[in-house]
Amino acid sequence: MEKVTLDDAFDSFDEPWAPRLAGELNGQELKLAKAEGEFIRHSHADADELFLVVDGRLRIEFPERPDDPDVVLEPGELLVVPRGVEHRPVAEPTAELLLFEPAGTENTGDAESELSNEVRRLE
Amino acid sequence: MEKVTLDDAFDSFDEPWAPRLAGELNGQELKLAKAEGEFIRHSHADADELFLVVDGRLRIEFPERPDDPDVVLEPGELLVVPRGVEHRPVAEPTAELLLFEPAGTENTGDAESELSNEVRRLE
Repeated sequence: MEKVTLDDAFDSFDEPWAPRLAGELNGQELKLAKAEGEFIRHSHADADELFLVVDGRLRIEFPERPDDPDVVLEPGELLVVPRGVEHRPVAEPTAELLLFEPAGTENTGDAESELSNEVRRLE
Repeated sequence: MEKVTLDDAFDSFDEPWAPRLAGELNGQELKLAKAEGEFIRHSHADADELFLVVDGRLRIEFPERPDDPDVVLEPGELLVVPRGVEHRPVAEPTAELLLFEPAGTENTGDAESELSNEVRRLE
């Protein structure tokens, strides 16, 4: 059992949209990600996804749901995006994020993109 | 989909060791808890448990594992306690915590205690 210090963990990598594994529990993964600008719109058929902003600012848009306003997350704010809901994260202009989702969830979900990245362990 | 602002959520209750539900996803729950002083030692047979300290300071002791040193969590630090591992959280002297664990996990696990509390929804 080793603790994770978020500041140190975020200092250990730079690449945006390339999640790092910070913890595993109950078949779920806690990931850290740096965000920069716009991500691709996508959904996860079988995964609810939690976003918690640690630093910066993240807008989450719902392109298929014109009646749902964007959600803007500042540090210390979180949102659960239910499975199947298309979403598009946009960092304004950068953000540090905690993500909580089932193990094996791909960052780009159903979208094919050069932004697809396997989760890597923290070093 | 409504975001949760942690500061506001922690301001909405005072009772220590009485978790509030902040989110549900994939059969898991995200809970907020205030901690004050010593909690009871306990374990969860079927639940890995994540502790993330938002404010204050939390020491986690492992009474059945004399070779495992206490882990002290400051704000922005987290620890996953695997299922079956007895642990005893001690706030020094208070702490605000995020907990991730399977839905239905009791706060006192296998221990019988007046500190047992059902999770309640945020108001």
